[in-house]
Amino acid sequence: MKDAVLVINSGSSSIKFGVYALSAAKPLMLLRGKITLIPRQPVLTLYDEATDSWQADSSITFTDNASQQADHATILPQLITWLTDTQHGYRIAAVGHRVVHGGQHLTQPVRLTPAIMLELSTLVSLAPLHQPHNLKAIDVISQWNEHIPQIACFDTSFHSTQPEIARWFGLPRHLTEQGILRYGFHGLSYEYIAANLPHYLGERAKGRIIVAHLGNGASMCALKSRRSVATSMGFTALDGLIMGQRCGALDAGVVLHLLQQHHLSPAAIEHMLYNESGLKGVSGISNNMQVLTTSTHPHAQQAIDLFCYRAARELSSLVCAIDGIDAIVFTAGIGEHSALVRERICGHLGWLGVALDPIANQHHHSVISPVKFPITTLVIPTDEESVIAQSTLALMYDSTDSKEIHHA
Amino acid sequence: MKDAVLVINSGSSSIKFGVYALSAAKPLMLLRGKITLIPRQPVLTLYDEATDSWQADSSITFTDNASQQADHATILPQLITWLTDTQHGYRIAAVGHRVVHGGQHLTQPVRLTPAIMLELSTLVSLAPLHQPHNLKAIDVISQWNEHIPQIACFDTSFHSTQPEIARWFGLPRHLTEQGILRYGFHGLSYEYIAANLPHYLGERAKGRIIVAHLGNGASMCALKSRRSVATSMGFTALDGLIMGQRCGALDAGVVLHLLQQHHLSPAAIEHMLYNESGLKGVSGISNNMQVLTTSTHPHAQQAIDLFCYRAARELSSLVCAIDGIDAIVFTAGIGEHSALVRERICGHLGWLGVALDPIANQHHHSVISPVKFPITTLVIPTDEESVIAQSTLALMYDSTDSKEIHHA
Repeated sequence: MKDAVLVINSGSSSIKFGVYALSAAKPLMLLRGKITLIPRQPVLTLYDEATDSWQADSSITFTDNASQQADHATILPQLITWLTDTQHGYRIAAVGHRVVHGGQHLTQPVRLTPAIMLELSTLVSLAPLHQPHNLKAIDVISQWNEHIPQIACFDTSFHSTQPEIARWFGLPRHLTEQGILRYGFHGLSYEYIAANLPHYLGERAKGRIIVAHLGNGASMCALKSRRSVATSMGFTALDGLIMGQRCGALDAGVVLHLLQQHHLSPAAIEHMLYNESGLKGVSGISNNMQVLTTSTHPHAQQAIDLFCYRAARELSSLVCAIDGIDAIVFTAGIGEHSALVRERICGHLGWLGVALDPIANQHHHSVISPVKFPITTLVIPTDEESVIAQSTLALMYDSTDSKEIHHA
Repeated sequence: MKDAVLVINSGSSSIKFGVYALSAAKPLMLLRGKITLIPRQPVLTLYDEATDSWQADSSITFTDNASQQADHATILPQLITWLTDTQHGYRIAAVGHRVVHGGQHLTQPVRLTPAIMLELSTLVSLAPLHQPHNLKAIDVISQWNEHIPQIACFDTSFHSTQPEIARWFGLPRHLTEQGILRYGFHGLSYEYIAANLPHYLGERAKGRIIVAHLGNGASMCALKSRRSVATSMGFTALDGLIMGQRCGALDAGVVLHLLQQHHLSPAAIEHMLYNESGLKGVSGISNNMQVLTTSTHPHAQQAIDLFCYRAARELSSLVCAIDGIDAIVFTAGIGEHSALVRERICGHLGWLGVALDPIANQHHHSVISPVKFPITTLVIPTDEESVIAQSTLALMYDSTDSKEIHHA
């Protein structure tokens, strides 16, 4: 048996997981996979480090015989059985979870208790697309083994270093005091990038850096001394950049108009802004940037243009928060893999002194700005799971000795 | 009798007016005044050009004997009687109005007809603080004299030159096609500034210029070749900068949260975002920048700090829309009169190459940047009424000969 930490990033239609060796040093990944197409036809895919590719794995079938579907409650115990069976033989000592919202008080990774779970459940309305699925996974694991230590790592934590001025809306004071603030998200990704910046930039890692996390969800973070100073996302995961299917920055008056003039319900507006907007809504074609970049339809082009223009506008606003710019980092699905999007965004930033080396950009090199250029532009693959693994290990070794952990 | 054009800028608690000589040349102002404290205790103040000051005038009392209050329907006919009586002896040939919203189709000044009034009334929900009072004044004048030509000049028109990309939200396409767009406002002010830029900048007036219209309502406009390329305000007059009592940029998710978790009605949220937010909401003290800048209360300082920080962030975003910056113009109440606010905003823009001459700024000089500095910073008093007068005259002389006008 190999003692291990299981990391779970549980979303609405996918569960990403990683298995890490139980050691106090840098997390060592043993296995990485994802289960997608939940609940209709869940399928397991495993990462193959040797070929840097993802391979479907048919050694497990997640079907609930009753409904012919399989939700998180069915899938997670089956996944754990599969991981702990004789083939793999992992002994899971702790589980670390990505939890999107920690609210005002939970600004560090925390070992989960019923009281903390109650607090986290009050935050569901702030991240309705994510928080319920994060918490569901925790509940399912508790039911499987109520004694196993579970740790939550929050996407909001990294932004707790922001000054008040970056977090406040122009709202009546009592609402701000009640916690209606710009929290910001994708913090685990920014934490990973911030930790790895010295490898790419040396001493300049402490400078003024904008990280663009461009995935199906997308945001940007302005870093100074590798700490978050401002971010494009707000109170919920709806604000800022245009995303795969979320609207990004929107005049609050539009919501009032849809309520009062279009007579839409709050739930209908919420569904529209979270699921029917962004690239999907503008193009009318897809929320997938890869699909859009290969489409010749003019609406696909409009959606890409708008995405890149708004990203450049948000980036420029963030530059003001850190008094200038020394480097840009592109990360996450689109940021790591779309040379076109990087080129288009940077195309709006020539006035700022940003330029790309077209060949380096095309080949997704780490450094895509011209050699010795004052503003360095980087592509860095993010790894939120390893941040969760590290925080989980740190909390375990902080609060107990390793002997206890092995038998948790 | 002196033939004249009357210009009316009708708000909820004030009516500003100007009387201009009827001539096809540049508008010549004959009289300028405002009636404030509507409806409780309306008082007339007149502008004295000789001393550049405003003087209360008690030769007219706007009180409805029945209610001891006086609304627009009582005040406007009394004002016109006062203007046309033997003392002043103006013969009003046409009335030009500021109308905040022209929607998607009305992108030029227009002579009002019942059909156009109907169209404008459908836009009330897009500017609930302003549009009803603008239209009320037109109705009252029609009742006084149904044959007098009335012209509407729109705060949205100036922004109709913006590219699609600056106007689109990341919303489902059908909503964009229905006109849920960033219209932008304060267009009459921007039109005035754009027309006068060559006086201050010569050939450089065609460059990349940000105009900051900072009044109780506040927005910024990015100009290139003296045309609007982008603006901070959106679909309604709620978005963008923090204002006297409006929130400015807000995560749409906050509105959903207030509906679903705080169980506030759309009307209550609308009232809060338009009337209880901004400087007033953040400080808890006042919506008046002058009051806040003389206050020593820390909440007043927080409100000013937030106002200036957000203004600098919005400005930086707009700079991206015009690929850099050659000049900044401050205008309107706060922009023209608060050296502190200009200093604080520019204090966030050093990275952009913006600097102020502290003495010139303190004295509200036209040019407040250091001599021969690459980015010129200006203070230019705006004059929306003269733009309305000019457009009204142009439309009158365009459609009729002067004889007809005299007897309209």
